Amino acid sequence: MVKLYLVRHGIAAEREEYTEDALRPLTSEGKQKTKQVAQQLFKLGLRFDLILTSPLVRARQTADILKAIGLSSQLEESTHLTPEGDIYSWLTWWEEWHQDVNSLALVGHEPNLGEWTEILVWGEAKGNLVVKKAGVIGVQLPKDGSPVGRSLLFWLTPPKFLL
Amino acid sequence: MVKLYLVRHGIAAEREEYTEDALRPLTSEGKQKTKQVAQQLFKLGLRFDLILTSPLVRARQTADILKAIGLSSQLEESTHLTPEGDIYSWLTWWEEWHQDVNSLALVGHEPNLGEWTEILVWGEAKGNLVVKKAGVIGVQLPKDGSPVGRSLLFWLTPPKFLL
Repeated sequence: MVKLYLVRHGIAAEREEYTEDALRPLTSEGKQKTKQVAQQLFKLGLRFDLILTSPLVRARQTADILKAIGLSSQLEESTHLTPEGDIYSWLTWWEEWHQDVNSLALVGHEPNLGEWTEILVWGEAKGNLVVKKAGVIGVQLPKDGSPVGRSLLFWLTPPKFLL
Repeated sequence: MVKLYLVRHGIAAEREEYTEDALRPLTSEGKQKTKQVAQQLFKLGLRFDLILTSPLVRARQTADILKAIGLSSQLEESTHLTPEGDIYSWLTWWEEWHQDVNSLALVGHEPNLGEWTEILVWGEAKGNLVVKKAGVIGVQLPKDGSPVGRSLLFWLTPPKFLL
């Protein structure tokens, strides 16, 4: 049984301030709240074999904070997790990679993370999950076979219920 | 926007010890954990206009604890929330009742609470939510029209991530 934790990036600078969306960093409030969330996850005993993150600055900074707090020693960027990424290309990666792994964190964007969760748990995305910035989702993937529509949702929390 | 909180009863005595399932009470561990969850909900600022509970002893005791902590001043029993209850009969009650209400807690049983949530959020139950004893679900219902397949899931937590 593999546990997948989907973490949305923290509060980032406004779009108007940056010509390139990919370069928007976390605000100081975003960094602070993300750090508090990471500390709480650590305190709850969570550890990840790997953190896979969108390479966009606001996501990468979020993933760096998770790693710095001690949630994982492994961090990789993946284009599957950009706003343009799709779950089926990620699943191809997953199927090759998931041997010998117990827990994996994905750091990325909305609406992707909520929709991926819906696809894993119910087989299709309706956009009916509320995933706040620095919010966390927990999904249990089956050990064998496709996880699409066969995974279990065990956690969904906004940061305010975690702090 | 109405917020619905579904709370599963705490840890109860084993079936073997009671001739009637309806009479099984919370164990002392169950009472203690439920109290901790209730205190945490209070600390997070949650208040309910009404707690509606299954009349079965383990649910009623759970609801009594929520009320005693100060989460609501109103508590009612409802047969809709027994293990035999179904969401559509509850929805009839809901449609007549939900005027002027901001937040409502339902205390009941599995698999009902998880399935009701799936029906509200995705329109059908697949049994893919993990709802632990004394676990909490948060669903946002639309102000108008049927909530079936049109509600938003904003929270799902096992007690261990809340304590």
